[in-house]
Amino acid sequence: TLKSNQHRFSSWIIDWLCLASIGVFVGIIAGCLNIITEWLTSIKNGYCSTAWYLNREFCCMGLSHDDCPFWNPWPASYLLYIGWSVLFASIGAILVKTYSKTAAGSGISEIKIIVSGFDFKAFLNQATLFIKSLTLPLVIASGLSVGKEGPSVHYAACVGSVVPSVLFSKYFNGLAFNRRHFITAATAAGVGVAFGSPIGGVLFAIEEISNFPLLSTFWKCYFCALCATATLASIDPFRNGQLVLFQITYNQTWYSFEIPVFMLLGLFGGLYGIVVSKLNIKVVHFRNRFLIPHAIKEVVYLTLLTSLICYNNVFLKDEMTKTMQLLFKECSPDSHSLLCTNDNSHKSWLVLSLLVATLIRSVLVIISYGCKVPAGIFVPSMAVGATFGRSVGLIMEILYASRETSWLFASCPKDGSSCITGGSYALIGAASALSGITHLTVTVVIVMFELTGAVNYIIPIMIAIAVTKTINDRYGAGGIADQMIKFNGMPFIDSKEEHEFFQDNATHKAMTLETVYFPLRLSYHDLEVILADTDYKAYPVLDQEGFCSGLVQREQLVAEIGRLKGQDRLQLETMCMFSEDSSTNPFIEDLQDSETCYLDHLIKRDPVSVMTSTPLEISLDIFVKLGPRLILVKNSGGKLAGLLSRKDIIKYENYLHSTTHSIDENEQIL
Amino acid sequence: TLKSNQHRFSSWIIDWLCLASIGVFVGIIAGCLNIITEWLTSIKNGYCSTAWYLNREFCCMGLSHDDCPFWNPWPASYLLYIGWSVLFASIGAILVKTYSKTAAGSGISEIKIIVSGFDFKAFLNQATLFIKSLTLPLVIASGLSVGKEGPSVHYAACVGSVVPSVLFSKYFNGLAFNRRHFITAATAAGVGVAFGSPIGGVLFAIEEISNFPLLSTFWKCYFCALCATATLASIDPFRNGQLVLFQITYNQTWYSFEIPVFMLLGLFGGLYGIVVSKLNIKVVHFRNRFLIPHAIKEVVYLTLLTSLICYNNVFLKDEMTKTMQLLFKECSPDSHSLLCTNDNSHKSWLVLSLLVATLIRSVLVIISYGCKVPAGIFVPSMAVGATFGRSVGLIMEILYASRETSWLFASCPKDGSSCITGGSYALIGAASALSGITHLTVTVVIVMFELTGAVNYIIPIMIAIAVTKTINDRYGAGGIADQMIKFNGMPFIDSKEEHEFFQDNATHKAMTLETVYFPLRLSYHDLEVILADTDYKAYPVLDQEGFCSGLVQREQLVAEIGRLKGQDRLQLETMCMFSEDSSTNPFIEDLQDSETCYLDHLIKRDPVSVMTSTPLEISLDIFVKLGPRLILVKNSGGKLAGLLSRKDIIKYENYLHSTTHSIDENEQIL
Repeated sequence: TLKSNQHRFSSWIIDWLCLASIGVFVGIIAGCLNIITEWLTSIKNGYCSTAWYLNREFCCMGLSHDDCPFWNPWPASYLLYIGWSVLFASIGAILVKTYSKTAAGSGISEIKIIVSGFDFKAFLNQATLFIKSLTLPLVIASGLSVGKEGPSVHYAACVGSVVPSVLFSKYFNGLAFNRRHFITAATAAGVGVAFGSPIGGVLFAIEEISNFPLLSTFWKCYFCALCATATLASIDPFRNGQLVLFQITYNQTWYSFEIPVFMLLGLFGGLYGIVVSKLNIKVVHFRNRFLIPHAIKEVVYLTLLTSLICYNNVFLKDEMTKTMQLLFKECSPDSHSLLCTNDNSHKSWLVLSLLVATLIRSVLVIISYGCKVPAGIFVPSMAVGATFGRSVGLIMEILYASRETSWLFASCPKDGSSCITGGSYALIGAASALSGITHLTVTVVIVMFELTGAVNYIIPIMIAIAVTKTINDRYGAGGIADQMIKFNGMPFIDSKEEHEFFQDNATHKAMTLETVYFPLRLSYHDLEVILADTDYKAYPVLDQEGFCSGLVQREQLVAEIGRLKGQDRLQLETMCMFSEDSSTNPFIEDLQDSETCYLDHLIKRDPVSVMTSTPLEISLDIFVKLGPRLILVKNSGGKLAGLLSRKDIIKYENYLHSTTHSIDENEQIL
Repeated sequence: TLKSNQHRFSSWIIDWLCLASIGVFVGIIAGCLNIITEWLTSIKNGYCSTAWYLNREFCCMGLSHDDCPFWNPWPASYLLYIGWSVLFASIGAILVKTYSKTAAGSGISEIKIIVSGFDFKAFLNQATLFIKSLTLPLVIASGLSVGKEGPSVHYAACVGSVVPSVLFSKYFNGLAFNRRHFITAATAAGVGVAFGSPIGGVLFAIEEISNFPLLSTFWKCYFCALCATATLASIDPFRNGQLVLFQITYNQTWYSFEIPVFMLLGLFGGLYGIVVSKLNIKVVHFRNRFLIPHAIKEVVYLTLLTSLICYNNVFLKDEMTKTMQLLFKECSPDSHSLLCTNDNSHKSWLVLSLLVATLIRSVLVIISYGCKVPAGIFVPSMAVGATFGRSVGLIMEILYASRETSWLFASCPKDGSSCITGGSYALIGAASALSGITHLTVTVVIVMFELTGAVNYIIPIMIAIAVTKTINDRYGAGGIADQMIKFNGMPFIDSKEEHEFFQDNATHKAMTLETVYFPLRLSYHDLEVILADTDYKAYPVLDQEGFCSGLVQREQLVAEIGRLKGQDRLQLETMCMFSEDSSTNPFIEDLQDSETCYLDHLIKRDPVSVMTSTPLEISLDIFVKLGPRLILVKNSGGKLAGLLSRKDIIKYENYLHSTTHSIDENEQIL
């Protein structure tokens, strides 16, 4: 036991070393990307005459913001702004199309599928990691209405998949279970670095990625996210010593008369989520049908359209995080922000401008999300919510200014200080829109909280998100990632969703009846025939009476056959025995008797079986919670009646849907 | 389907109405308790001459803190301080002993057991709710080293159990599943109001209470915690418009040279957790053996001892949250706090005083936690960590003052402003100690964060807690709640723990062989005999060959028998049929044929069964993740071989432990 203790200790060390390396790598990549993105964004507007590689902020460091002789805006700025944007986007699109098609899009849906137990190795390989990291800054800088959070999660997941299999390949035998843990932890790191919000990352990994969270995952995600954000903080890409993207201190507090307005913002978030995801699915459908061969052209035209429009609205022109920083800020008497004015007519103009920005950004999100470059939807959604929220905030300010003495504002302070904090509305609007599009609750609250440090506003944010979530649950069709999964027909059973089958749907209705099995005894020739004819991942082993001894995994069987072949111990007529009554140590037997090879050590004694009469809901529960690849279905006599896989359940669910639908359609015709 | 839609909608409304009521009730109780506690704490020191019911703060409202003529300290203050303390504690102890013994202690362990699926109804009834709420302010005001967080969780869980069964009894049929959901959500509300930290509450419910978290629980906890904290905020018990217990703004940031010190604080937290929980278990053992009949006397002596000692140390005398507020504060040049001084010798004296306070508080926690009054361990642990952390902070300040120019402090600002923020060390110390005693990670970070709003310090807090967690995982024996569960031998399978059985431990080794079953056909007389002779909660139904048709729940069977008896349709010789080949509608049959009664509609077709050869780890996984009460164990022929319950697994685990132990002991003897 001393040796096993030592072994356990060293594997414990390696586990954590691996998690730490994943975190550090993700942090380093995030730091580099932040710096590159800043520079590319800045070059769109001008260049630094002292050093071409400096962005505006560093070029003018130490000088006043408005008076900086070293920073030269481009001549013909509108044209060059568009030119740079299109250039960046087209390079990105070409790289993606040429080297790694899997680097396109957000990636969150696919990662959910992988973590839920499916193999999709190309999605998380080195090429994807490299291309996604390389093209992400280009796309963000191009000004397309896409965010970097989804792609951050994707490249982090790539790191989580690549690091154990490359750096630590000696120690991991590629167990899928471990692999999933690392990927989940890596996604926490990805969100952590994207938002500068490590705990938000942990919650994201749990609420969105891991279909069925385990408590041990909590701590792994925590550790990985901590390593990543600490690395990022030590790189300090923004050179302000802060991880927090836009720290805000609201001096004011909120008043209870504002609660209905907060709920209105929540309502907006819910509607935004439903409308945008619905329309975006339609666009994706259109894209899949007509635009697949024109992927690069599509990106170019999209960027052209985006930059043409956005240059003319001050809330659309800048990078989205910068704009949000502006929108979240509270107005103090001595602030010179664009949004801080006491002139009511100017305020009305601002409201209009913000509402136009909200609408345009929403349309751009709908047509941009899913195009063939790295593209997230989190930050654009927050930006939409922030512009809408701030416009509501301005309306409230106008209202307050005109009816200061109304009973409605009775609880406001009487010392002349402002009662309405416009920035807080932007914050709450951003939170609601983010929750509306993702269907996340706790994660969004924590992210908003870590982004801004606005601890006073936790109850308003929670109220707005509660409204959003209620609307989503009743009228929405799931978060955008889940909708994409459904749209693409990926094999995924969502544990959040309520799967409704009719009362009498027993498991036997969904199971596969054509079961390919091994008998307890068969010749090597027959075995190879079965393996060649079918490509199942696992086969049941049945005795003569039809009782099942367990499952044999194809992968393990093939490996074992290869091993035996290498030792020249397999002829075509060799009998392969899956029987339990072989000797207890098959390897010694092997040497004596080359005519027989014992394979019973490969049998996985089936952990879970259900009966044909077991309700389908319970079989589904077993898939979601225990995560097997296959469930054995036995009849009441204990014999194997069939097999059930996730795909069978989804197929059956679709079949039920189609029958009810077709009945409806018939009724309409009659 | 229209009707079923309507039904689903109304049950949805009732579900949420019920959650909202739980939240509002918890919020109201918390508000009242806060006000009462404040007043009781204040009366220990003096009284208000203008109105006896005001505490010092309200009595002197508008006046300067030091000069308030209306507030009269008691004469002979030391004696009266002790007197009041003992009076409060003894009233509390008497109430608990007389009316509800289950109101003693923290309650978190028992709630974990209940949520994991065990029935323990007395623990969450109205009497417990009433007595726990009533005695909690008394105990807190008595100055005992116990916290209000555990008890808050307990009274909230009582509300979560009482509200659905009393206010909404019409709508809920007492389904255990629903009940668990409400209780879990209520615990989130309990922590939410205790710390003013709704999201921390949600995470607590997920990380600590729900053994196996479901994503749907997230949202229920969120909603319930929001309702509770919003109610509390609208009551505004502290009259400062803030939910946040002690808001802090640190102007300074942290430097990388501080990281080793943060890790040291994490180390302290880990050691504190291990030592205190180990010694506390010993004290509880002693208490259970000798002090049970003297529960009230014990509390009186404890309070006497506590108040005698604590009056003389400034960091022990006040209520713990007040002290922590003081300890967390940053020193600004114009602050008059006790802890802000530039005199190094005074600082050394403070360090000593803080270390003494740390030690005394630790000892008091060890002997107080578990005494027979409502008693939590969260806040006292935080207080211990805070005193230790601040003393480390002061040592760092002294070090910095003496070696300002050392290379160590090279990154400090050169403008003369202080480099070391003493308060942040207290904050991190408190977080580590809390994590050390509870083994929670994410929850602690979020709670500390919501308590203080110190968003800049998230990485230091996370680093310290990571160290604490690592130490706990390697050298600790689990959080205090889990240790209590184990110590009391409660039937609980911890999903966080790694259960290690020997390689060859198949399920059949742990299962019960003496299976009491019903045949498919038996007389009512035989049925009653079986029911009278045994008290199992469920019985398998077997056919002649030993195949199992499913399980019958005792409760349902007894209810059905009662119903049939009421209709005079049961004689002793009536044949009870569990057979499947009865008519499809047993109720119509019944009327025609009074000699036979069909009970097959009571059979729960078994959802999950395992084989005798299934590894015990997998059976355990099924219990934890799917939550059945019983697992059927079948042999390879598909016949029932035995039954497996949680208790069987725990019994077997204990048996394995005892055999290995006894072998060790034998070896020592030989």
